[in-house]
Amino acid sequence: MPEKTRLLTPGPTPLPEPVRLALAKDMLHHRKSEFITIMRRAQENLRLLFGTAGPVLPLSCSGTGAMEAAVCNLFQPGEKVLVAEAGKFGQRWGLIAAARELEVVTLSAPWGKAVAARDIEEKLREDPAITGVLLQHSETSTGVLHPVREVAAVCRRLATLTVVDGISAVGLCPCPMDEWGIDCLLTGSQKGLMLPPGLALLALSPRAWKKAEKTRSGCFYFNLIKERDSLTGKGQTNFTPPVNLIVGLDESLAFLLKDGLEAVYRKQWALTMLARTGVSAMGLNLFAGEHFAWGITSVLLPEGIDGALVLRCAAEKFGVYMAGGQEHLKGRLVRIGHMGHVDWADVAAGLFALNQGIKEAGGFCGSRDYLERSLAAWRAALTVPPGEAPSMTHS
Amino acid sequence: MPEKTRLLTPGPTPLPEPVRLALAKDMLHHRKSEFITIMRRAQENLRLLFGTAGPVLPLSCSGTGAMEAAVCNLFQPGEKVLVAEAGKFGQRWGLIAAARELEVVTLSAPWGKAVAARDIEEKLREDPAITGVLLQHSETSTGVLHPVREVAAVCRRLATLTVVDGISAVGLCPCPMDEWGIDCLLTGSQKGLMLPPGLALLALSPRAWKKAEKTRSGCFYFNLIKERDSLTGKGQTNFTPPVNLIVGLDESLAFLLKDGLEAVYRKQWALTMLARTGVSAMGLNLFAGEHFAWGITSVLLPEGIDGALVLRCAAEKFGVYMAGGQEHLKGRLVRIGHMGHVDWADVAAGLFALNQGIKEAGGFCGSRDYLERSLAAWRAALTVPPGEAPSMTHS
Repeated sequence: MPEKTRLLTPGPTPLPEPVRLALAKDMLHHRKSEFITIMRRAQENLRLLFGTAGPVLPLSCSGTGAMEAAVCNLFQPGEKVLVAEAGKFGQRWGLIAAARELEVVTLSAPWGKAVAARDIEEKLREDPAITGVLLQHSETSTGVLHPVREVAAVCRRLATLTVVDGISAVGLCPCPMDEWGIDCLLTGSQKGLMLPPGLALLALSPRAWKKAEKTRSGCFYFNLIKERDSLTGKGQTNFTPPVNLIVGLDESLAFLLKDGLEAVYRKQWALTMLARTGVSAMGLNLFAGEHFAWGITSVLLPEGIDGALVLRCAAEKFGVYMAGGQEHLKGRLVRIGHMGHVDWADVAAGLFALNQGIKEAGGFCGSRDYLERSLAAWRAALTVPPGEAPSMTHS
Repeated sequence: MPEKTRLLTPGPTPLPEPVRLALAKDMLHHRKSEFITIMRRAQENLRLLFGTAGPVLPLSCSGTGAMEAAVCNLFQPGEKVLVAEAGKFGQRWGLIAAARELEVVTLSAPWGKAVAARDIEEKLREDPAITGVLLQHSETSTGVLHPVREVAAVCRRLATLTVVDGISAVGLCPCPMDEWGIDCLLTGSQKGLMLPPGLALLALSPRAWKKAEKTRSGCFYFNLIKERDSLTGKGQTNFTPPVNLIVGLDESLAFLLKDGLEAVYRKQWALTMLARTGVSAMGLNLFAGEHFAWGITSVLLPEGIDGALVLRCAAEKFGVYMAGGQEHLKGRLVRIGHMGHVDWADVAAGLFALNQGIKEAGGFCGSRDYLERSLAAWRAALTVPPGEAPSMTHS
């Protein structure tokens, strides 16, 4: 039996100790001043993290609930939206929009690739009735980062709303909502925010708020206008909030933002460099090429290697829990999550467990010094001057 | 400053230590066997608590979310339902049903009174198109218990579904779903279950499942059929569940059910006797008469006494947090919650703080021995033979 277990799944993620202790606190009443103080403090930090001047609404649901909240508050049944789909969560946008009786136009890219902003522009020009584009920033099923900045710029020019599932992106890579012109950005608590699942966060742009005000949502529970009014008026939520997750959020935001946003993103970028360098050094294929997400690294297994066996070996012999592929990629991918309260040694342990798992499954793994090369890449990413690294800040 | 605070609100409630420690545990992945074992164990205890042979679905939302899940999975837009309304949460059923475009017939009783099963029967006979009756078991805004057993019997005879908001009832007073013929019973985590808010639980009868299978819900997130299939097939949820609340639920159910259901209800009944005896002995009016809820006691303040001042005094001078009235009863009621991890001394402290608060607000409080009389009533309720007490069991 391994002595420790390491959770290297792309959410939920390990929790920092101050967060765990906050979760264990005895109950506060959600209409009392002590809780409202916490709500207001968390709100300031959330606005910084989302890069928005507007309110960031806490919702008592999973990330999928927030996706549905966005759809049903921004679009009427019968409205036409474009779903950019290149993975399981892209598909989910389509399913939610269809359940809400929107007319769905789909732009697909192969799983493992990003959608192109120019293809979205073309679709929007072909069909001016499209009032919104729904996409992921990080597509968790493939480890790909879609070009949200470029897509939002296109949507601004063509007066269409950009609705972004930032579940595996917020707190992991820059996604400055106001600067990029995103109209709806949402996330869940169990990824970059290092909390248990059960809390979602959602923000709208001023023009999205105008649209929401004109939309009859048909939802009672997910009513963004009422949530905004409760939050901005009283520092409260419309219904009973998940109190201990919000108390934990206050701690996790303080923990995350202690050294500023630049440090948050540089840490995540460096861990991503660590994982990608190690995977390549082992002679394995990175599933996401140029447009890779931070916080998750997807590995395409060699032909004939059984992914389930690799994952089982990593878990049972080394205590390392990683995720497999989804849908048609089941058994073909290993997805290493390096988000939340995970450090360089955890990711290196994940690489070692992956290497051993592949050997156990009958495969061969490249260079002997893959760990040293990974860690060198991590160190370099931490110290490379800002000009030679991707932008780590919101501006 | 008081040295301790006592949360005597009707939810959220104080948490037992084993629950708090469980909430602080590091994260488990929700698709892994350790979590599935917890889900299955909690399921056994939930079926016992709900008094049902069917699955009890965990949902990541507040109690209101579960109410909307029930409405949109059981009824199509245009269907006619009867809402039994005698308080804020009865009104909420009506608002949810209207948001979902059901046709709503309302049967109102004055706030502070229970609806009568014979009035529901009359409405159903008048209008055979009604396919469901929506009501609370315990109406938290007034402290009244509606006669769910009798209503369900009427609905069974007239082939109409009984949909029960048991948010302030499950784990506090008997509500055996299968035996009483309830078609949908739901609750939230932050009342009798002694957990933080953020988790709801919902069960359907076999005939309600049949109806749900024929209903096109229009909801993606609240899909009870998919939740049932995930739960019964794999011991999982359809979307990411609130992992640490479910780990806490496993502990809270073990804590709650340690001495059996009879002990759970007798404790709650005895605390209710304690509170009601004390309120009467102070010369105050109990807002709920014959049909009173267990777990909450509503006090009608004397004319001219400012409820906000009473609550502020109780909180600031004695560390006791109680709730006020809602809507037109704001300032007129004090609602003492005695649910969750609250004992006799906590409730006695609440009575003392109430007494002092009323004096501070210029009122007069009856007998000097109200605390002794309260505690004697509590002792008697704990020891009275089963034949002389209300039924404490599900059968």
